[in-house]
Amino acid sequence: MKKKIRFALLLLLTGFSAMSQQALWGGAEITSPEIRDDHSVVFRLMAPNAKEVKLTGDWMPSQGWVPGTENMTKDEKGMWSFTTAPLSSDLHSYSFQVDGLRCTDPNNVYLIRDVATVFNVFIVGGGNADLYLINKVPHGTVARRWYDSPTLGLTRRITVYTPPGYESSKEKYPVLYLLHGMGGDEEAWIALGRTSQILDNLIAKGKAQPMIVVMSNGNAAQEAAPGESSLGFLKPTMQLPKTMDGSFEKSFPDIIRFVEGNYRVKAEKSGRAIAGLSMGGFHSLHISRIYPNTFDYVGLFSAAILPNEKDTARIYKNIDQTLAAQVKNGVKLYWIGIGKTDFLYKYNQEYRDRLDKLGMKYIYRESEGGHIWSNWRTYLSEFAPLLFK
Amino acid sequence: MKKKIRFALLLLLTGFSAMSQQALWGGAEITSPEIRDDHSVVFRLMAPNAKEVKLTGDWMPSQGWVPGTENMTKDEKGMWSFTTAPLSSDLHSYSFQVDGLRCTDPNNVYLIRDVATVFNVFIVGGGNADLYLINKVPHGTVARRWYDSPTLGLTRRITVYTPPGYESSKEKYPVLYLLHGMGGDEEAWIALGRTSQILDNLIAKGKAQPMIVVMSNGNAAQEAAPGESSLGFLKPTMQLPKTMDGSFEKSFPDIIRFVEGNYRVKAEKSGRAIAGLSMGGFHSLHISRIYPNTFDYVGLFSAAILPNEKDTARIYKNIDQTLAAQVKNGVKLYWIGIGKTDFLYKYNQEYRDRLDKLGMKYIYRESEGGHIWSNWRTYLSEFAPLLFK
Repeated sequence: MKKKIRFALLLLLTGFSAMSQQALWGGAEITSPEIRDDHSVVFRLMAPNAKEVKLTGDWMPSQGWVPGTENMTKDEKGMWSFTTAPLSSDLHSYSFQVDGLRCTDPNNVYLIRDVATVFNVFIVGGGNADLYLINKVPHGTVARRWYDSPTLGLTRRITVYTPPGYESSKEKYPVLYLLHGMGGDEEAWIALGRTSQILDNLIAKGKAQPMIVVMSNGNAAQEAAPGESSLGFLKPTMQLPKTMDGSFEKSFPDIIRFVEGNYRVKAEKSGRAIAGLSMGGFHSLHISRIYPNTFDYVGLFSAAILPNEKDTARIYKNIDQTLAAQVKNGVKLYWIGIGKTDFLYKYNQEYRDRLDKLGMKYIYRESEGGHIWSNWRTYLSEFAPLLFK
Repeated sequence: MKKKIRFALLLLLTGFSAMSQQALWGGAEITSPEIRDDHSVVFRLMAPNAKEVKLTGDWMPSQGWVPGTENMTKDEKGMWSFTTAPLSSDLHSYSFQVDGLRCTDPNNVYLIRDVATVFNVFIVGGGNADLYLINKVPHGTVARRWYDSPTLGLTRRITVYTPPGYESSKEKYPVLYLLHGMGGDEEAWIALGRTSQILDNLIAKGKAQPMIVVMSNGNAAQEAAPGESSLGFLKPTMQLPKTMDGSFEKSFPDIIRFVEGNYRVKAEKSGRAIAGLSMGGFHSLHISRIYPNTFDYVGLFSAAILPNEKDTARIYKNIDQTLAAQVKNGVKLYWIGIGKTDFLYKYNQEYRDRLDKLGMKYIYRESEGGHIWSNWRTYLSEFAPLLFK
């Protein structure tokens, strides 16, 4: 009787809003993606009226600008499906093309925006990606805060990870400043980069020191990520003003001042690391050399190293001079990671030659693959354990 | 020359990853939705091969379980479009149906999950929804944290809004505990409810006291929202165990203990408010009466009031007795909001009779519409200014 009444109420509640009704109406019984024990993955889409359904995923080889696709096959009920070969342990992204129209998977609510496109995502564990899972370990706090940047004349949004135990401790913590690439923002590392999961897991295993991770927004014209600023729900674009013209580097002390004024941190060179991917690697390279004796740890992940500084903003000149000073002042770790097929591979090798000539010691990590998040998550997983030891 | 090199580099960077390539390839020139000055909205979808495209939106009348739709029309290039009448100022949600397949809008990256379905969203300002926009006002901090619930034997995730100035002040702040409905979680109020925007804007206008808002997870079997727990990217469901069986209410002191142990708060009855929508209204009703003298402010938003407590869990019995004690102890504000067409309307009127008999004074707010987020955002916008005065 008790159960009966509760069940009737649940039915009532289930029927609540128009939105909830739609939620139920969307074909709740289909599982897609289904990750099998052997790490092959089955995708399913009920589309009886479609003539052609293709799957595109980040594990498929792409040709230049054209992403790879696989044709899905239709059964007698109108269900399209495709089963992959076993996939690597990673966070993977995909979407469907239904008669030429790009569609997300209506049976997978997990989506991540990359620049102006939204992808469905899933995680294949059992390898690298075990670090990307939310495991039963102590979890840090992730906060979205706003700081004043007098240099840019803006109040700006920032994402801050504080490690487990931060709030209840009296200790001072070291800080990793972690910078995104072009088209990214203060959401990139936390969403696509799985930063909080990687740090939680590394710290729980005793493989990384508890540290604060500060994920700033490197587009100096922006207050915040698309949809999170006073510009409203604008359409994101890849090409933004004030990204690689020196503005962000000039304003970086505003961020350090905010962090060191608002968190219990080791406000000294040995307690500061800076790393970034692509444009964020470029920013990290320059910020670490133009503010002397500020960072003891530098990480360049597939860094967008400019082929030629001759015609660039003044802040990007005198590189050798400032790098030589950086060598002289000393750096505990200078870390360079690049994929073999990255189109920036050549520029990174030229940069290594330059460092060699200046006598800068560094760790060099060459990985498979190109300019992809899979590498950047891996680099973070390898770089973080080397910090603050 | 300087510009030329930078542009060449930008092109290179733009072509970076397979994902970025896909981002560009998705038809960047289409604007959808386009919100016009008169608040009519144009939706567009390029689907030359589709035979029929429908639009469904939360502003359309739905019939029982079937959401309303509008037929879109196709031009010679294969672009489907539809223009609405002027819409109300609100956060609106919508999706497309392409030859029967539910699709999100590939030109709108703004998506919110409601239970197991993902909708595109947009905001029409110029009215109520001006409170839902990110305006140029001081912004509070939104943190996702984890707390221990010894009662439930779980470490659980919680969303906490701290008002602008909290970090730099020494003051103690009052706390609003804000609870979600069935199928929701600790993300519901912050995403669909626009809580941080509403509070930022009300506080900036001097209409609400600066307060902390704690958004807990009322599904007592869950560690966290779908995708945010150790269960991984599981498919969300509406019907969860331990939602209305007394477990959450029993564990609520764990949340209060965490908040009062971790934030600078007014840890007294006059500094505590509790409010919730639907199931969260049900939780608020019961939590406020079973912990005597704990809350001075109670808000029931479209509360899922049980028609009959006879056969329910023990925690839901002796309602009159505990309510009478609540009346005797005194409450500064008891607030009830319900929509005229809400299917819970009748039960809320019965509950009002009950309160009248017990001599409990309350503010009663009857709105248009039913059991919808539009009402819950409005209720929060009206309720918050009444607190802690």
